[in-house]
Amino acid sequence: MKFQDATSAEIDSIMNAAWQAFMMYRQTTLQQRANLMRQIAKEMEAAGDELIQTAMRETNLPEARLRNERARTMFQLTSYADACEAGHWLEVRIDTAVPDKGDPDLRKWQVPIGPVVVFGASNFPFAYSTAGGDTASALAAGCPVIVKAHPAHAETSEIVAKAIARAIAKEKLPAGVFAHVHGAGFETGKALVTHPHTRAVGFTGSYGGGKALFDWANQRKQPIPVFAEMGSINPIFLLPGKLAVSAKEVAAQCFGSITLGVGQFCTNPGLIVGIEGKDLDLFIEELGTAISKAVPGTMLHPGIAKAYTEKRAAALAGADVATVAVAGTEPQVNQGRPTVASATAEAFFRNPLLHQEVFGPYSLVIQCKNKGDMLGVVRHLEGQLTTSLMATDQDIADHPEVVAAAQDICGRFILNGVPTGVRVALSMQHGGPFPATTDSRFTSVGADGIKRWVRPLSYQGWPDALLPDALKNGNPLHLWRTINDKLTNDLI
Amino acid sequence: MKFQDATSAEIDSIMNAAWQAFMMYRQTTLQQRANLMRQIAKEMEAAGDELIQTAMRETNLPEARLRNERARTMFQLTSYADACEAGHWLEVRIDTAVPDKGDPDLRKWQVPIGPVVVFGASNFPFAYSTAGGDTASALAAGCPVIVKAHPAHAETSEIVAKAIARAIAKEKLPAGVFAHVHGAGFETGKALVTHPHTRAVGFTGSYGGGKALFDWANQRKQPIPVFAEMGSINPIFLLPGKLAVSAKEVAAQCFGSITLGVGQFCTNPGLIVGIEGKDLDLFIEELGTAISKAVPGTMLHPGIAKAYTEKRAAALAGADVATVAVAGTEPQVNQGRPTVASATAEAFFRNPLLHQEVFGPYSLVIQCKNKGDMLGVVRHLEGQLTTSLMATDQDIADHPEVVAAAQDICGRFILNGVPTGVRVALSMQHGGPFPATTDSRFTSVGADGIKRWVRPLSYQGWPDALLPDALKNGNPLHLWRTINDKLTNDLI
Repeated sequence: MKFQDATSAEIDSIMNAAWQAFMMYRQTTLQQRANLMRQIAKEMEAAGDELIQTAMRETNLPEARLRNERARTMFQLTSYADACEAGHWLEVRIDTAVPDKGDPDLRKWQVPIGPVVVFGASNFPFAYSTAGGDTASALAAGCPVIVKAHPAHAETSEIVAKAIARAIAKEKLPAGVFAHVHGAGFETGKALVTHPHTRAVGFTGSYGGGKALFDWANQRKQPIPVFAEMGSINPIFLLPGKLAVSAKEVAAQCFGSITLGVGQFCTNPGLIVGIEGKDLDLFIEELGTAISKAVPGTMLHPGIAKAYTEKRAAALAGADVATVAVAGTEPQVNQGRPTVASATAEAFFRNPLLHQEVFGPYSLVIQCKNKGDMLGVVRHLEGQLTTSLMATDQDIADHPEVVAAAQDICGRFILNGVPTGVRVALSMQHGGPFPATTDSRFTSVGADGIKRWVRPLSYQGWPDALLPDALKNGNPLHLWRTINDKLTNDLI
Repeated sequence: MKFQDATSAEIDSIMNAAWQAFMMYRQTTLQQRANLMRQIAKEMEAAGDELIQTAMRETNLPEARLRNERARTMFQLTSYADACEAGHWLEVRIDTAVPDKGDPDLRKWQVPIGPVVVFGASNFPFAYSTAGGDTASALAAGCPVIVKAHPAHAETSEIVAKAIARAIAKEKLPAGVFAHVHGAGFETGKALVTHPHTRAVGFTGSYGGGKALFDWANQRKQPIPVFAEMGSINPIFLLPGKLAVSAKEVAAQCFGSITLGVGQFCTNPGLIVGIEGKDLDLFIEELGTAISKAVPGTMLHPGIAKAYTEKRAAALAGADVATVAVAGTEPQVNQGRPTVASATAEAFFRNPLLHQEVFGPYSLVIQCKNKGDMLGVVRHLEGQLTTSLMATDQDIADHPEVVAAAQDICGRFILNGVPTGVRVALSMQHGGPFPATTDSRFTSVGADGIKRWVRPLSYQGWPDALLPDALKNGNPLHLWRTINDKLTNDLI
């Protein structure tokens, strides 16, 4: 099915409707928003096999994975609904008046920023797309959402959009709380980001795409925040003590993470860094053997398969890059062939191409001469979503500089684990220093993702009856609030 | 005294030292940072009369005001020190492992973002300058600070910088935790903002200055956040019920706020909006009488006085702008003459010049024909630090659209008060939609200002002994933490 690109007149009309809906939606109670999110989860389930079959056809992802991903998306919606209702994210602060000092009564909470434009990811047609984390967190915040469908799964997106629209109707909310826009070219995205009623942008995808949105948003007369999650190579550092005792086990963990989902995760480990010697040799041998027995998988769409083939070839063609192993089975059309290569730290320092993401089942092992080389590799890296250490406690004690530098460049710092597998929890940080994301101070996974779409508003000198419930003396929402610098759930 | 502009080699050396100091300073305990801030407060006091006299000479501000401002700055330092120690800003979230579901242990807190460059304001030589709120909040966060001295009070800044350096030495911290740079032209600022070791920027000043820093920061290879507080005209809306009963009192309040400190506050009310009729006439008459009896005051420096004279003249020359009253006393050199003008809503809609700040003791009264005009005025306004309503409860009920629209454009929403007087408290929001500030999601006053300089970091799968104290099972810092979605100060 082919969808028409939205015209600029259509986008203008959609954004005006979103703005009108915002006037009403921001006044909904936390419970109303939570009900909407729970209803969206139900409607996604009700979309049944048609949704799964359509997504299978559009993304080449296997049925089990898509059923899991839908369940995850429903869990996200309901867990963000719970967080919405709990209201910690409102961050209520109250300082009562001190007439002797002339200090007025001041009460601060978070208000929704306005309509949020969401660009979903191709690799998560449910969880980071139409009804994914950005949409759920923006709805929790009280913001209308306008999703630009990913062209690689436009029909899937259309089905989910209709599920959302049904939920909105059932909850008797204005239709303009959600809109769905198609657009194959960049013009649609640009028109959405630059529209005066757009107040924030969420994006998951490539560096090129995210950076373009970021620049458009900053060049507006009124710049708006963009939270773009872009590429990441998620380096794993193999420290020598750990490798000496567990080279085989670590190789098996890395193999699983590299090839999971045909390597099509933003947390796929694209770089593995060790210090040369027999333990690293054993690790490479084990990883290579596993990779050579791996089976190529069909990638999300022809564009991604083509990019993988080209970037992989360019990386392997680099001076001083050795191919360690490729999957023995010849890949079919649009399949990605699992591959591991290796290079020296020297080569890595010289060749910036080796610092870049090859999106797919590919990883590069860097063989360092010593600790100093390993520190050099960390310092050459840009910002990452994650870094992982494979290390014993003694390794941590012996490599303070590597540990500190590896922590500096990431949002999630993993010990003896692999980066794939992003737990949906308040404690998750899915956002790292640029270019992993455009603002390392926010996350796109977990209930703290709501904070991207709200801003603080202080009321000065308002009588109790005119304040929002969250700020009233009687604490009718039973919130935890900081009152005169003391955290309490008491009333005043 | 004339100071040399820092050369780019000097800036490079300063930023390298800041980066080195960061490696150590970020590992200090909350108590160490709080001790530093309290010691800076003591050293500012110890700087004694010399500091006050120098500031008087450089800024033309009266002695009493400067003594008050120093006391306020010391209060800021000690109150941010208290907030630093209390550690709520660390926003600790812990989700323990759920092995059955394969969920790893995840623990998130906030880590300092890195060296912060601060550009102080000319109008607050202490409180928003060298040892002001930006510096205090960045030091609390664990970030080294590099202050570019405001050229209008470079000697004052130098004395405060030396006080900070003494405090750092007494607390046995690396000298690079703080640096002080002079530079009269934009080159110094640009070199600081674009240096690779700079990780964030704080600024208080004009739109032109703040926007330039914002653009430079976004054009970097690795963009960095800029929190710039720029202009604001802080509109006051006079609703008819209130005006009918309190026109004189409201006029007296407005007069005090317009002329306070020769109008040189970022929260000075530059626009007053009412609905035409006898009550508004009375208000204007009272305000005009008070203004005509006011005495011109010497402004901060010749540049500000010149800008005030020119912008005031341009505004008064606007078509359909009527001068209501000017201070009767002729101004001396560098003095600002208190002035109130008026215009119709129609004129305001036509002439964008009237939407702009005239920094000084000037305010424009807009006479609306009706509610609709008043709503139109709000909708023509850009983002503001504050908006104020002078209103009875019935007025609030009768003007829901004006109330909603006025709230939308500000960070602090005041009822029956004036915008000048910024309480230093956790509940303060000093930051509004662009162009009041570059990011409405943050504040530059109150302990939440610390959040500008930190980013979340999650630890996945780390053993208790290797975690930072804030994240340890035993909760040795006695913090409030969210553990498995429950807020508690218990241990695990």
